[in-house]
Amino acid sequence: MFFKVKTSEEVLDIIQGFEPLGEEIIPLAESFGRVLSRDVVSPEDLPGFHRSSMDGYAVRAKDTFGASESLPALLEAAGEVAMGQVPTVAVKGGRAVKISTGGMLPEGADAVVMVEHCRLLDEDTIEVTRTVSPNENVIQPTDDFEQGSTVLKKGSTLRPQDMGVMAGLGLTEAAVHKRPKVSIISTGDEIVPIAQRPRAGQVRDINTYTLSAFCRQAGAEPLVVGICGDSFAELRKMVDEALRRSDTVWVSGGSSMGTRDLTVNVLESFDGMELLVHGISISPGKPTIIARIGSKAAFGLPGHTASAMVVAEVFLSPFLSRLSGKAHFVVGQHKFLEARLSRNIESASGREDYIRVRLIKKGAEWVAEPLFGKSGLISTLVEADGLVRVDRNVEGLYQGDVVRVALF
Amino acid sequence: MFFKVKTSEEVLDIIQGFEPLGEEIIPLAESFGRVLSRDVVSPEDLPGFHRSSMDGYAVRAKDTFGASESLPALLEAAGEVAMGQVPTVAVKGGRAVKISTGGMLPEGADAVVMVEHCRLLDEDTIEVTRTVSPNENVIQPTDDFEQGSTVLKKGSTLRPQDMGVMAGLGLTEAAVHKRPKVSIISTGDEIVPIAQRPRAGQVRDINTYTLSAFCRQAGAEPLVVGICGDSFAELRKMVDEALRRSDTVWVSGGSSMGTRDLTVNVLESFDGMELLVHGISISPGKPTIIARIGSKAAFGLPGHTASAMVVAEVFLSPFLSRLSGKAHFVVGQHKFLEARLSRNIESASGREDYIRVRLIKKGAEWVAEPLFGKSGLISTLVEADGLVRVDRNVEGLYQGDVVRVALF
Repeated sequence: MFFKVKTSEEVLDIIQGFEPLGEEIIPLAESFGRVLSRDVVSPEDLPGFHRSSMDGYAVRAKDTFGASESLPALLEAAGEVAMGQVPTVAVKGGRAVKISTGGMLPEGADAVVMVEHCRLLDEDTIEVTRTVSPNENVIQPTDDFEQGSTVLKKGSTLRPQDMGVMAGLGLTEAAVHKRPKVSIISTGDEIVPIAQRPRAGQVRDINTYTLSAFCRQAGAEPLVVGICGDSFAELRKMVDEALRRSDTVWVSGGSSMGTRDLTVNVLESFDGMELLVHGISISPGKPTIIARIGSKAAFGLPGHTASAMVVAEVFLSPFLSRLSGKAHFVVGQHKFLEARLSRNIESASGREDYIRVRLIKKGAEWVAEPLFGKSGLISTLVEADGLVRVDRNVEGLYQGDVVRVALF
Repeated sequence: MFFKVKTSEEVLDIIQGFEPLGEEIIPLAESFGRVLSRDVVSPEDLPGFHRSSMDGYAVRAKDTFGASESLPALLEAAGEVAMGQVPTVAVKGGRAVKISTGGMLPEGADAVVMVEHCRLLDEDTIEVTRTVSPNENVIQPTDDFEQGSTVLKKGSTLRPQDMGVMAGLGLTEAAVHKRPKVSIISTGDEIVPIAQRPRAGQVRDINTYTLSAFCRQAGAEPLVVGICGDSFAELRKMVDEALRRSDTVWVSGGSSMGTRDLTVNVLESFDGMELLVHGISISPGKPTIIARIGSKAAFGLPGHTASAMVVAEVFLSPFLSRLSGKAHFVVGQHKFLEARLSRNIESASGREDYIRVRLIKKGAEWVAEPLFGKSGLISTLVEADGLVRVDRNVEGLYQGDVVRVALF
């Protein structure tokens, strides 16, 4: 079967072909960062009563008409509204009742005069130095939300303030998409557990740690399967079990000459498997594989950590967003910063390049310094503050160009 | 005691006066997002052996000198390097040993010819069509890290790639600052638990939810103390217990006329209490209190959720960073986006204003639409995508100005 290397746009489209995970109901207090699986509709009017938005005196607006500094209105001081209580006094003609921000308006009152515009002349008399209009400084019963109105949209990621609004409406639970469970497998005869001292020729299992942390960052749940040697039988068994236990399987490594096709061969051995992507025209990250097995996606990722991280940023992040049910476009899903390039970057036309950069503040401006280094080093990973993309249709970027750095 | 309202710069300075929390040692696998309490130093050379950075053939560079497409060098094919193994063959004059990316160089070899520049003529003979220099395509034993070199700095927040590098060095644990424990108290006679149906005049406890989620977002651990009526004795008891159980106490509310001084009075009743801030020249958020009790900070926050959230974004976020031991400035700690203002914003000079905005994409540009609404509404919270700051020394911003929106 001949397989054309795909562009990143094609791969992002393919990713949207997977369905968001199902729903679960969780306590509101645990819903931070979760994604709504349904619209949230207001079960009631909020605040539900006439509420003062200022400290002052509740009055009938018409009793203040014409009042000014030079010609104040005189009103009868008639008690105070206790917070959290239905007022026990009513406002009749010529009366004013003391009220705090958030207090409930007494019967008869239709406005609040700010305390700054009132003077207590004696125990019983208040001078009002300003005219208020009806409803001035008053929150109406449905000003925040009307019963049945949509408060939050399906697909929203819950922020602190969204949870606050749900709390305000008395919603003690949230209907959210399940969090993706991701099985992570590192392959390669040269890989050893990190607690083990590698012999010459061996390296420690880095990708289990970077990919697990990447899942946590994205709100997904990593399931560490472990290290697999370059063996078809062993890898097939691990992938099989992983497909049953989790929503997606990520296999990194297996790209050495002898084992390059191991992951593909294992994935192809599953019934009804569909190979969606076999190679992407990006660098690094070209030898990436995506297969659909049943309803689940299995990814073959490059073994080199820096390459696997680029694939994670560019493709696995939108993939997890999709499984999580996040609305297609979310403002600020990624942190970007504009910076000026410190030197030219060459790039092969027809290929999308991702260049790691270090950011340096020079005066008011950020300078992005490309980090080049031998492929296979991990030290450049920690020096980098972000990634710059060089589009497929350009041959490079020039020193002094302003570029968008995706921070990580 | 007379207390001058402080500027936000003064408050941010005061916040830096609190000390980062102590250290704990945790498993590397659980360290995502935690802050290093010490520099990480490389315990060994990495990779520790000569490693191929390409698929190809390990050779002596000088055996390829002068080789080209038209005049290839002929070398003897002498086996293959197995991944993760010390090579069993050596490269002597005229020999080439097959090697994969990441493989260990055999004795005698000092370079790797990429597989693209080699042709197998027969079982025993390889044609090399390009000259390689010594060390070409070879990672040296200390290329990534030299034993004793600093890998990560104290104060760094651990990203996936940082954890990867620590894994690569065999560091199974991380020394990090403890996560701040934050006690959260909502005060006000009008506040009821969210599961309870408020009677007229009452409102549900929103701030416990917004502030808890805000803590989680910042990597801190919220401890929900609960709701406190407007009672000195009750609030003092809660604060006292909270100070013993946690690293900082946040009291929101208590700003109605009768109870405005309740939080200050309670805080002042503790031995050795120092009132650091009593009012900040920002809007919203002016009635904010910060006190030092022992080594801990107690905050009095506005009761109105939108105001409390602004104080959280502007002051509590850097405060938690400080307790967490984060390096003073972190690239991309906040997500910003540049947008064009859709209308004028007026602002009182001498006061820093924070305006909630909604972001709308118009062509290639973002437009920031200020959300004005009656103070006391919570619906504007969910409509907002971020905050725009109007500096103290300006009288407003104009329609069409490009502003920096802090996303939330």
